[in-house]
Amino acid sequence: MARIVQKFGGTSVGDLDRIRNVAKKVKTEVDAGHEVAVVVSAMSGTTNQLVQWASEIGPMHDAREYDTIVATGEQVTVGLLSIALQNIGVDARSWLGWQIPIRTDNLHGSARIDDIDSSKMRERLAQGQVAVVAGFQGIGPDGRITTLGRGGSDTSAVALAAALDADRCDIYTDVDGVYTTDPRIAPKAKKLDSITFEEMLEMASLGAKVLQTRSVAMAMRHNVNLQVRSSFSDLPGTFVVDEDTVMEKETISGIAYSPDEAKITIIGLPDEPGIAASVFGELAQNHVNVDMIVQSASSQSQRTDITFSLGQADLNKAVEIIEKNKSALKYDGIDSSENVTKISVVGMAMRSQPGVAKTMFETLAEKGINLAVISTSEIKISVLIDSEYTELAVRSLHSAFGLDDDS
Amino acid sequence: MARIVQKFGGTSVGDLDRIRNVAKKVKTEVDAGHEVAVVVSAMSGTTNQLVQWASEIGPMHDAREYDTIVATGEQVTVGLLSIALQNIGVDARSWLGWQIPIRTDNLHGSARIDDIDSSKMRERLAQGQVAVVAGFQGIGPDGRITTLGRGGSDTSAVALAAALDADRCDIYTDVDGVYTTDPRIAPKAKKLDSITFEEMLEMASLGAKVLQTRSVAMAMRHNVNLQVRSSFSDLPGTFVVDEDTVMEKETISGIAYSPDEAKITIIGLPDEPGIAASVFGELAQNHVNVDMIVQSASSQSQRTDITFSLGQADLNKAVEIIEKNKSALKYDGIDSSENVTKISVVGMAMRSQPGVAKTMFETLAEKGINLAVISTSEIKISVLIDSEYTELAVRSLHSAFGLDDDS
Repeated sequence: MARIVQKFGGTSVGDLDRIRNVAKKVKTEVDAGHEVAVVVSAMSGTTNQLVQWASEIGPMHDAREYDTIVATGEQVTVGLLSIALQNIGVDARSWLGWQIPIRTDNLHGSARIDDIDSSKMRERLAQGQVAVVAGFQGIGPDGRITTLGRGGSDTSAVALAAALDADRCDIYTDVDGVYTTDPRIAPKAKKLDSITFEEMLEMASLGAKVLQTRSVAMAMRHNVNLQVRSSFSDLPGTFVVDEDTVMEKETISGIAYSPDEAKITIIGLPDEPGIAASVFGELAQNHVNVDMIVQSASSQSQRTDITFSLGQADLNKAVEIIEKNKSALKYDGIDSSENVTKISVVGMAMRSQPGVAKTMFETLAEKGINLAVISTSEIKISVLIDSEYTELAVRSLHSAFGLDDDS
Repeated sequence: MARIVQKFGGTSVGDLDRIRNVAKKVKTEVDAGHEVAVVVSAMSGTTNQLVQWASEIGPMHDAREYDTIVATGEQVTVGLLSIALQNIGVDARSWLGWQIPIRTDNLHGSARIDDIDSSKMRERLAQGQVAVVAGFQGIGPDGRITTLGRGGSDTSAVALAAALDADRCDIYTDVDGVYTTDPRIAPKAKKLDSITFEEMLEMASLGAKVLQTRSVAMAMRHNVNLQVRSSFSDLPGTFVVDEDTVMEKETISGIAYSPDEAKITIIGLPDEPGIAASVFGELAQNHVNVDMIVQSASSQSQRTDITFSLGQADLNKAVEIIEKNKSALKYDGIDSSENVTKISVVGMAMRSQPGVAKTMFETLAEKGINLAVISTSEIKISVLIDSEYTELAVRSLHSAFGLDDDS
């Protein structure tokens, strides 16, 4: 007998038939003798409607009222799923954030979980009752409803799994696991049987939208055994596990890409100590997150160019800030582009295999793809390229690192 | 400065524009220096959608889950109205049933209010903050969400007015007050400036659907000053008041009718003591509510006929019960009809004016309308007639009692 947390997203509970399907998946675990807590999102589309109402009635709305409104989406789903479970003979009850309670800070709209009191729920689980838990929501220090922000239901599930000391936390979604890369771009992408937390964190933050980054970080911190699997099949998914439990270390786990990037080049900065600090200090103060940076000094002219990448949403703001500081920075000009994509090779094995960077750069060079910026970490190498080469780069790297599914 | 409870029903908050309109009505009272608590229903249509989902996913659903689901309707409205108020410069916050709390018994789906703790709300009201309260909902002894049943928001408003010692409880609706009869049948019906609790109770239970019977009874018990008024105009409505505060007692307050009636005649019962008890005891045991009864003994045959009225929904069940007991009751036959309507003349003044019954019967006789059954109370006289005479009867009585608006 194990204790399992299951999480189903908005698409998986999108209508009554799908909720009935979820009930069956829960029953399977109950029939196998497990204690089960199920975390659910709002029916797909519901949250958007609620957010739209809140925005229309008042663009500058009180976040506490916003949370009161949008939290109803999950409240409806837990009621419906509990009824669906009871109808197929499974004892179940719904739990709202404030009923458990899931205590959060008071950052309405993007609250963080402080504490989950699982004592009452543990009693019910021990009696064989399924706990149907509203994701995405909690209760703040002032007794008002809080929400964890978009995608927060993954975080709810992982936090609950940690609080319940669950043996497994299964995240059901509309794909059947984590792939070596996006199958829409590379048809030969294959499903991974397992991936480490660190790798998953990189993949998630690099645009593989299977799991929310925050939930992976929390799972890693509390060592929660995660599984990403499909709501619409019964096949096993991908296990996200601690590094130590990975049996077979493949060279590379996956190729990720993030298309929402932009780059800025500041041309002809004086090559003085502290010049980079001036540029990036100003941007940081204005809450612009800079990702990768490369500085190319020119020995002849005493001038240097700095190129860096940032999110597309911040591009205009960043350009304005730099232009406003032109007299202080004394540069010659600015060049910026939205048509860039970050391509990353991710894998634990990189630590011990220095050949990864070489293979990556050679592969891209062979296809005539220029690298604007490069950055590396212990388990990934990222490069910024022209967006039009995205598909070619992903497919070439996928083959070069032996990830193609040739079955 | 007064303390006022306002209540707006589903039609009054049916879309964002109407919610903004409600915000303006609240602001008017705030600007006049009053402390204001607003009770709102779900946006019209919302509750039906939620009820439909709950019924579709499981016809025999757990009432606790049903309440969890349907209570979300009001939760959305309080959030939206609070934002709308803040946007026009009125300090406001939403209160859910469990946040106040409004404590109820555990009869989920039709819970009764045990107690309202108004201490926190009074503090906020004193600070000039408007309390936006979710109607229809409370919290049960087990910490689960309860609902008060259909139309329960009127009850929420009256109970809150009593708990807050409010000076007035204004029920905003889509009509501009209580009328002497249904204006759709009698175009000369006029709006009453005031009506007593007792009269309103009779009118409400007789089909004038302006106020829920239960809320009127509660207002009477706690002596809450009620006003029924329009959401869509600024005119004063109808005050529902204590008998002692009515200045001018008109003869009759109104003519009510209830079309959902049925009648059964049991023909040729033995004229023995206890025979009526046998008939109605059996029906009562099976939860059939009998309304008016008439027994017509025949001196020659030692046989008697009993005619009685009941709700249409109970007709088939009642006939079955009587037929099952034919051998014990020893009657000759049964006659039943759904095509009957109860017409009632309601008014406090009836107590002192014995001529009311005479005028009523004469008026109906002149039009050739037969009375199947008659019943009287201190403040009303009801008769059962063929449904096809409904409009004629209502209009004739309305004229005969001098209620026509000839302005």
